[in-house]
Amino acid sequence: MSDKVGLREVAAEAQVSPTTVSRVLNNRGYLSEETKNKVYAAMEKLQYYPNELARALSKKRSFTVGIIFPTLTNPFHAEVIQHIESYLSQKGYKVLLCNSLNNPEKEKQYLTMLRKNQVDGIIAATHNRNIEEYNIPGLPIVAVDRDLGKNVTIVSCDNYSGAKMACEKLIKDGCRQILCIRGDSKIKLPANARTTAYKDVMQAHDLPEYILEDPLVKPSAERYQIISDYLQTHPSFDGVFAGDDVLASFAIQILGKIGKNVPADVKVVGFDGAALTLALKPELTTVCQPIKQIAQVTVSKLLNRIDGHVEENITNLPVTMHFGTTA
Amino acid sequence: MSDKVGLREVAAEAQVSPTTVSRVLNNRGYLSEETKNKVYAAMEKLQYYPNELARALSKKRSFTVGIIFPTLTNPFHAEVIQHIESYLSQKGYKVLLCNSLNNPEKEKQYLTMLRKNQVDGIIAATHNRNIEEYNIPGLPIVAVDRDLGKNVTIVSCDNYSGAKMACEKLIKDGCRQILCIRGDSKIKLPANARTTAYKDVMQAHDLPEYILEDPLVKPSAERYQIISDYLQTHPSFDGVFAGDDVLASFAIQILGKIGKNVPADVKVVGFDGAALTLALKPELTTVCQPIKQIAQVTVSKLLNRIDGHVEENITNLPVTMHFGTTA
Repeated sequence: MSDKVGLREVAAEAQVSPTTVSRVLNNRGYLSEETKNKVYAAMEKLQYYPNELARALSKKRSFTVGIIFPTLTNPFHAEVIQHIESYLSQKGYKVLLCNSLNNPEKEKQYLTMLRKNQVDGIIAATHNRNIEEYNIPGLPIVAVDRDLGKNVTIVSCDNYSGAKMACEKLIKDGCRQILCIRGDSKIKLPANARTTAYKDVMQAHDLPEYILEDPLVKPSAERYQIISDYLQTHPSFDGVFAGDDVLASFAIQILGKIGKNVPADVKVVGFDGAALTLALKPELTTVCQPIKQIAQVTVSKLLNRIDGHVEENITNLPVTMHFGTTA
Repeated sequence: MSDKVGLREVAAEAQVSPTTVSRVLNNRGYLSEETKNKVYAAMEKLQYYPNELARALSKKRSFTVGIIFPTLTNPFHAEVIQHIESYLSQKGYKVLLCNSLNNPEKEKQYLTMLRKNQVDGIIAATHNRNIEEYNIPGLPIVAVDRDLGKNVTIVSCDNYSGAKMACEKLIKDGCRQILCIRGDSKIKLPANARTTAYKDVMQAHDLPEYILEDPLVKPSAERYQIISDYLQTHPSFDGVFAGDDVLASFAIQILGKIGKNVPADVKVVGFDGAALTLALKPELTTVCQPIKQIAQVTVSKLLNRIDGHVEENITNLPVTMHFGTTA
């Protein structure tokens, strides 16, 4: 952190007073174009960068948003964060990135760190059950597909409709024994509506319900093993509705290993439909979340809250289906 | 940004002087355990978060690192950023995330923003050709698999060995017409050694060279089209060595569409081997970069440079191969 060049040096170079430089920087009072140009030229020449930390302190606004997500290596998370960062950057906000790695202690430390660094708001998509920690008076928080308590605005896709489409597609394809692989049922989140839709569709068609819980917070290898153990001991399934595309991919791999052909023997539908997933695995039939729109609505609600407005939850952003060959 | 609670309020609550609170916060001078505990208890009770911005200003160190990457939606980038953030967080550093989206103007704005925000260092992996912008005296920068000029320390895997392994695997499998798909040859980066290795291996085996350039900065759909146009007009290939796993995946899709069986007709090897890629597409044979190690070495070199040490480039972190069924 170098600060050898300051207001004084810029003023000397531009042959104006330090007060004039300060007025140019803060766009305050009358300033001729000539004066402004002299100051800008001096800043450029001396490579002077006004200290945003000092500015944030004096303005009591940091133009910084903290993002707490479990990982970057889920393609839905990566894509939504990328768009969130782009929208925030367009609006003049910076992003402090925090990956909780599903560790509640780390998540708590991040929350403290973000508050110490005076963020103007937080966007979260973590699996922390201790949601009271997100009840921070005066600090706007928006959650992507998470229920983090009464202080937090929720943004999510229409999970129910997406899951309904997925399950009805499997039934239309002839599946009668459909397994639903879901995350931890103890965590409150809008995505739980996916399981509700599964149950409703099975009941409407008089089909049995099979629900496998695969906790979101476990490492990838353990989540794979849970599906593997289950599918190996329950060989009768002819359909799988997976909670996300990575789980769908795991199911497809495991089915192959136990000698089942996808889609001839078992049909599989995933959820999320991130661009990267479809680039790597276009054969996957899946429900596509409107990821760009989720990011845009999330940022817009957060900035409105930072400006003091009240924002309602929105949990019905429209989903679409990508038809591959796995169902 | 709320700051109603300050040193004064904490001092009153703890029944000590504001100076004592300040000494506790900065761990300065002799303090009894009792005093410290009283201050900590008051901070906890009042939910007081010391202002890190003020601290950064007074210490002339922000404990913030800027990360400029093109996108998060390349699985190698996402994984390396996740590990970088974890290592930095362990060392008490925060991460300001910047996605340049391959836009040189945006990249330049990010560099300015990071300097205004007094970052202690930068980690970059962009495709900007105007590398002079990274020559910032006094600001440590480390690049992941990029050559950004003399002020920037490079960290990369052993690209040459990885590519050599990939090409020799294809030849061992019987391929004689091997296409190398690479990024833009005009950008200086260590990964260019992959093409050098391809050429060396082809020459050593007296095989023809076919190199298709697919510029890194183009959008995904265009990069797909470049490969599609080429493969459709050059149906004689029996092997493809792709510059990264997404390109390998594109090649596999295109080959399927033009009626070629992978691996029977054409064998394909990728590069990167991110965990997510192997979760979604375990059948892909690819060269695996030591992503965690790259992140760790990158962070360690950056922190050493922040501490004033000189750091050499390291471009030979060891690669391994993942053997799927595509080659």
